[in-house]
Amino acid sequence: MTTPEMEPEVEPRIRAAVDALFDREVAFLSELTAHPSTRGNEQSAQDFMAREMGDRGLSVDRWQIDLDDIRDMPGFSPVIGDYEDAVNVVGTHASRRRTGRSLILNGHIDVVPEGPHDMWDSPPFSPRVDGDWMYGRGAGDMKAGLAANIFALDALREIGLAPGADVHVQSVVEEECTGNGALACLQRGYRADAVLIPEPFNETLVTAQVGVIWFQVHLKGVPAHVAYAGSGANAIEAAMPLITALHAMEERWNGAERRHGDYGHVDHPLNLNIGRIQGGDWTSSVPAWCVFDVRMGVFPGQDLAESRREIEEVLRAAAQDSDFLRNNQPEIVYHGFMAEGYALSQDRSTAARDAIGALGGAHERVTGRALDTAAITATTDARFFGLYADTPALVYGPRAEAIHGFNERVDLESLRRLTQTTALFIAEWCGLEDA
Amino acid sequence: MTTPEMEPEVEPRIRAAVDALFDREVAFLSELTAHPSTRGNEQSAQDFMAREMGDRGLSVDRWQIDLDDIRDMPGFSPVIGDYEDAVNVVGTHASRRRTGRSLILNGHIDVVPEGPHDMWDSPPFSPRVDGDWMYGRGAGDMKAGLAANIFALDALREIGLAPGADVHVQSVVEEECTGNGALACLQRGYRADAVLIPEPFNETLVTAQVGVIWFQVHLKGVPAHVAYAGSGANAIEAAMPLITALHAMEERWNGAERRHGDYGHVDHPLNLNIGRIQGGDWTSSVPAWCVFDVRMGVFPGQDLAESRREIEEVLRAAAQDSDFLRNNQPEIVYHGFMAEGYALSQDRSTAARDAIGALGGAHERVTGRALDTAAITATTDARFFGLYADTPALVYGPRAEAIHGFNERVDLESLRRLTQTTALFIAEWCGLEDA
Repeated sequence: MTTPEMEPEVEPRIRAAVDALFDREVAFLSELTAHPSTRGNEQSAQDFMAREMGDRGLSVDRWQIDLDDIRDMPGFSPVIGDYEDAVNVVGTHASRRRTGRSLILNGHIDVVPEGPHDMWDSPPFSPRVDGDWMYGRGAGDMKAGLAANIFALDALREIGLAPGADVHVQSVVEEECTGNGALACLQRGYRADAVLIPEPFNETLVTAQVGVIWFQVHLKGVPAHVAYAGSGANAIEAAMPLITALHAMEERWNGAERRHGDYGHVDHPLNLNIGRIQGGDWTSSVPAWCVFDVRMGVFPGQDLAESRREIEEVLRAAAQDSDFLRNNQPEIVYHGFMAEGYALSQDRSTAARDAIGALGGAHERVTGRALDTAAITATTDARFFGLYADTPALVYGPRAEAIHGFNERVDLESLRRLTQTTALFIAEWCGLEDA
Repeated sequence: MTTPEMEPEVEPRIRAAVDALFDREVAFLSELTAHPSTRGNEQSAQDFMAREMGDRGLSVDRWQIDLDDIRDMPGFSPVIGDYEDAVNVVGTHASRRRTGRSLILNGHIDVVPEGPHDMWDSPPFSPRVDGDWMYGRGAGDMKAGLAANIFALDALREIGLAPGADVHVQSVVEEECTGNGALACLQRGYRADAVLIPEPFNETLVTAQVGVIWFQVHLKGVPAHVAYAGSGANAIEAAMPLITALHAMEERWNGAERRHGDYGHVDHPLNLNIGRIQGGDWTSSVPAWCVFDVRMGVFPGQDLAESRREIEEVLRAAAQDSDFLRNNQPEIVYHGFMAEGYALSQDRSTAARDAIGALGGAHERVTGRALDTAAITATTDARFFGLYADTPALVYGPRAEAIHGFNERVDLESLRRLTQTTALFIAEWCGLEDA
């Protein structure tokens, strides 16, 4: 018996089908990007995803995340508030024959805040195409990837084919702050033999990613009328030596002796970012409070509890050098990322080797170039599958620029290649059957 | 003909009338303090003041400030937005005989924000009395003064007397940010031979006050995903060297060679305060923007335009030392105080000498002590009357603690003395007639 994937002409037919559908894929991406799915506001985008999945005959699972279901799982990140507005969507293709290896195509629907609109050349949630680029918040990170996941399956269907194994198309929330959306998919029982996450890393396979810790530093003190500034304590200025001390810690953590092997040649892999600050109520009142938000990277294998202790010790020691802070110890609140690093490069399993091989082959056929790999200085949801479900998670997505910045954009020709590569990878990994 | 003020028994009768009414005065202050009259929210407090004035037979003038009426007047401070919510109230006692010298009793109804409620021992707008103290935002700064202005007149009326000259009781907005409320009273034509402003300076006569400049520094730059922190520019951290440079300027301005005579022995009279800061949108995005608010004092006689130029030059020079700021010059926005200093001590007029003498006499009779004077490191609305209406403005009010801070409180026995002193001062300055 001959299975469809054996037919020699299937590869060009799949690629041609992606091309034939590509205008529709761009329109899909544009519509998806128009949903301003910042954290807490993903519902309309998830409604769109669920509808599109359903229209394609996928069986759709749409559920609200319940904190109680996941809070005791490894990889959980602490959050403030509940998850009333956190909805995941998974569309499943159930293979009839199940001859191949199953696959999760994962993507996150949440986007980071767009920032001041006057810094954008055009409105961030009114996507526009200019040459090869589509502009818009989330176009690159990572709605193009979500589009590729959907349209890779569309291309197969267009030529009468379907994956020869179960494929779960996941659209998750919370990637940008906790990863609890992907974690909730694990909790709900979704498993597969491999995972593909098309995060926008320039058609390069991510072989290692850092972990990330978010923490908030709260400073509070006794304010006063500025006429008596000496008797008050300026909570905003009290933040400055703490930030300086945190940067000194950042340099130590990046030191040669602490380096993870995958990051030996990466310039400054662990970044500490003061991402937000707020303090004070009135220009002529000495500010009584200040809060700042910090993001710090950690290497794969770096212990999170120990890292937290070091952060706390750094802040405690810096506070000792300040008259104000000595008597008003900074309070550290963890909410958001408490994420370990993850290195696919250390996954010695057959599944990992085969999945990387299949992706590399597809990439090479589409691009004509060997698959590059990279150790990245960000985190992705890959860690959940790799660390807590023993599943190789391949992060490989389109070329994008200015993600998290202004005029975020994704290269549409790169998206076309990604969609072709994904479809060929599915054909190879899952096998094919008649649709 | 004998006028009432000549009668030897009038002074103890006035003081006894203040005592007799004091429970009512405390209740009045409590009710007034319960109105959360932060900037933009003064209407209910002003309604209360207008009603109380009207009930006492004062003719009430209540009007919305029109920016166009005042923006070209000397002493105007720039504001953002309009003044749709800025209402002044003036209640006028029109003397029948007009034998004495007229008086403005001025006070401001606006209070500074209360800050985080958990830093207060009890809710800031639920005034409470504990021993001699009344606690609440605005109780000291300066609703106690507003109460004293009203109840000093009440005490005279209680014993069948009234000021022998016109008295305008002013309840103005915007003292805490611009002074445009007092300025609008000048524009509306209110004039008198002297002004009393019972700001809470511990029963001390203010003989000099600093000027104040408010400015906002806006930083904007190119943000990025923190994974590429090196390619972004952290707008929050870019603020730090600017703040350091501003403090260096503050030290120069406080230097001996720049000192105003009235401040020769004041420790650090000119305070620079970083009162508010805000920046960034997302913990894992390098912040693209940061805004901080600065308050800086100036000496009486210090030229505001020249001071602004120096501030701008300091920021420009500091920006040159920063890779980020060199290409993203800080933007300086002035809104709020653009206030000159004012020294009553330099008013050589007969009116000033007489008004100070009358207040000093009243103070001495009530407290048994000579009137102390002070050069203060804050500003008040006194400058409008002194600088732009050639009218001596006496700032003299009750003892308060933690103004602009948590657990702001006013000493009620001090309020009682202030009310007596004010009533005696009115009797002396305005003379008395039958009510």
